[in-house]
Amino acid sequence: MKIRINRNTIREAVKNVATAADKRGNIPILSNVLLEAEDNSLRLTATNLEVGISTLISCETVESGKTTVNALKLSKLVASLTGEELELETDDSKLIVRSVNSRFSLATLPPEEFPEVELPEKYNVKLLTSELDKAIKKVSYAVSRDEARYILTGVYLKSFGDKIHAVATDGHRLALYEIKAEAEEFSAIVPRRSLSELKKLLRESEETEMLLSENKLYFRIGDTVMWTSIIEGEYPDYLAVIPEDNPLKCVVDRDEIVNALKEVSVIYDKEEVRAVILNFTPGNLKLTAKKVELESGEEAEVNVPVEYNGEEFEITFNVNYLLEAVSSYDAESVKILMDQPISPVLITSDEEPELKNVIMPMKV
Amino acid sequence: MKIRINRNTIREAVKNVATAADKRGNIPILSNVLLEAEDNSLRLTATNLEVGISTLISCETVESGKTTVNALKLSKLVASLTGEELELETDDSKLIVRSVNSRFSLATLPPEEFPEVELPEKYNVKLLTSELDKAIKKVSYAVSRDEARYILTGVYLKSFGDKIHAVATDGHRLALYEIKAEAEEFSAIVPRRSLSELKKLLRESEETEMLLSENKLYFRIGDTVMWTSIIEGEYPDYLAVIPEDNPLKCVVDRDEIVNALKEVSVIYDKEEVRAVILNFTPGNLKLTAKKVELESGEEAEVNVPVEYNGEEFEITFNVNYLLEAVSSYDAESVKILMDQPISPVLITSDEEPELKNVIMPMKV
Repeated sequence: MKIRINRNTIREAVKNVATAADKRGNIPILSNVLLEAEDNSLRLTATNLEVGISTLISCETVESGKTTVNALKLSKLVASLTGEELELETDDSKLIVRSVNSRFSLATLPPEEFPEVELPEKYNVKLLTSELDKAIKKVSYAVSRDEARYILTGVYLKSFGDKIHAVATDGHRLALYEIKAEAEEFSAIVPRRSLSELKKLLRESEETEMLLSENKLYFRIGDTVMWTSIIEGEYPDYLAVIPEDNPLKCVVDRDEIVNALKEVSVIYDKEEVRAVILNFTPGNLKLTAKKVELESGEEAEVNVPVEYNGEEFEITFNVNYLLEAVSSYDAESVKILMDQPISPVLITSDEEPELKNVIMPMKV
Repeated sequence: MKIRINRNTIREAVKNVATAADKRGNIPILSNVLLEAEDNSLRLTATNLEVGISTLISCETVESGKTTVNALKLSKLVASLTGEELELETDDSKLIVRSVNSRFSLATLPPEEFPEVELPEKYNVKLLTSELDKAIKKVSYAVSRDEARYILTGVYLKSFGDKIHAVATDGHRLALYEIKAEAEEFSAIVPRRSLSELKKLLRESEETEMLLSENKLYFRIGDTVMWTSIIEGEYPDYLAVIPEDNPLKCVVDRDEIVNALKEVSVIYDKEEVRAVILNFTPGNLKLTAKKVELESGEEAEVNVPVEYNGEEFEITFNVNYLLEAVSSYDAESVKILMDQPISPVLITSDEEPELKNVIMPMKV
């Protein structure tokens, strides 16, 4: 293999692909990136078996061929090199990288050791990349971190043909974002870690295509393909959890309630039960936080103007849960829909009808 | 105590002072900030006994008095509050903080428990704050991290009347910055940690005053005073270490050698001996790095144009040491002055005559 390639082009490609390489280095070949040169193009592929990324860039191929080299090292090297054009050439068991004034000799592993990767030719889901990005951003906070509830440690994607639901829940709260799409029906639970890898690639192209095939979910974004293993099992019936007819309605400025929640939580030290009591009266929402240690007696009270016409109503939340739910909106105002002090609360916004959040109150 | 105070004023003051409070919380009073209100001014003081910071800000004093409250909590509170003016009032064992729509009740500890602090009235050293800032920034990299060489874990400040030397060394390299000053003669070793606290305060005023008194070094910057314990013991004779007549001279572009050093070090993994061989020939400097593991055979070579007219000369450095030394210059070019492959090397720059760096080569 011998190629000449623009440094910025390979720099960007290696950066994208290297994140999928195995960082622990237990299996050396999985820490490597596979380089395949042919017909004036270079394919770079890395995978830790859970996630894989492959991308195609153009180059001048002097001699086709393939090799594998440590992904992190190649990434650091092309990031630090100053010349505009690089030459990459295999020489026995080495990859020689040449720039204007420099020459690097890197160790390689045989490409035959690299896991076989077959990329799909056709995809059956099409959606705006910006919508996928937004969906991941908006719902990820609600994904469970509890490995004992394995099914909940990913984002559930469910296609209805013209729309896809992105759902996350940890049992205490739930977030649902509705994406417009052209899609065949499918459903898959995507591991949280894979989504953070995916997010880094979501600026390559306006449109993203997807395909679920043999327990792998493929995303094609421009000339880059990422695939991820999916979580097997049945996701809970999330639609049944969303309360439809909560009668008590309060509209509040998004920034004001976010600030108020941050303010009252100041009195809590780390690792404490962080409860906030919401007291609704016409036109006003009073938020109160009290430290549970009796000797301390620390207390916080913040008032926020709201649109609320019902009777006085009191409900208690984990302050972090409520804060994350209302923070997930970019809207100017959010709507809090309640029923009983112990029944699930729905948070919505007329400005962002595609996003819904549900929180369970705290029992007091 | 009862005061009214501008939120931004107290926010800035608490942020500055709180860094000196004890973060571990073993002795609760040391995690608190002392608030003393009198004559329309509020003094805030925090100390972990090693370092202390005290600052004076103006306020409306309705009732003089003092109290202490957790520094971190007060800092988070005044940072998150949205009103423009705050009211602080003591109420039994509580401090009540009121803003437009909110009320916080914080736990206090009696001010009598707070360590006694006496600030000096006169200082006998005067220097530009920007120069002190620069000196700390330039030499800190060379401070020893080895607690077994306690004397070397700080920056040595030595006054000669019209100038102060700031010196740091870990035995392998040494950095010296010369500050112009009006100063009585003194010398003190300032712990590394204290300097990073000090650096945060070095934007409060153009001029800094200093005083060494009873094993404490005081810095007055505007309305803020910081003091630090000093490291006791005799600092090594640093002037004897600086080679004066090294005959081999090489001038090199600062950015080019910095980049070249970063490039060659790419081949090293973490925790390896990171050697770089410098080979000087007329007009050219060749930098070579080789992995020591034989089976790897990885190698890097970078060439940099230089002004050098001597005979071919080869010398080996720890690449990090050389990188940190040349990086410490803001100048466009640096000068490397050498004698023998095993004798200390001096790095200077005609553009920054106030800064000198010495490095010991690696034995090979």
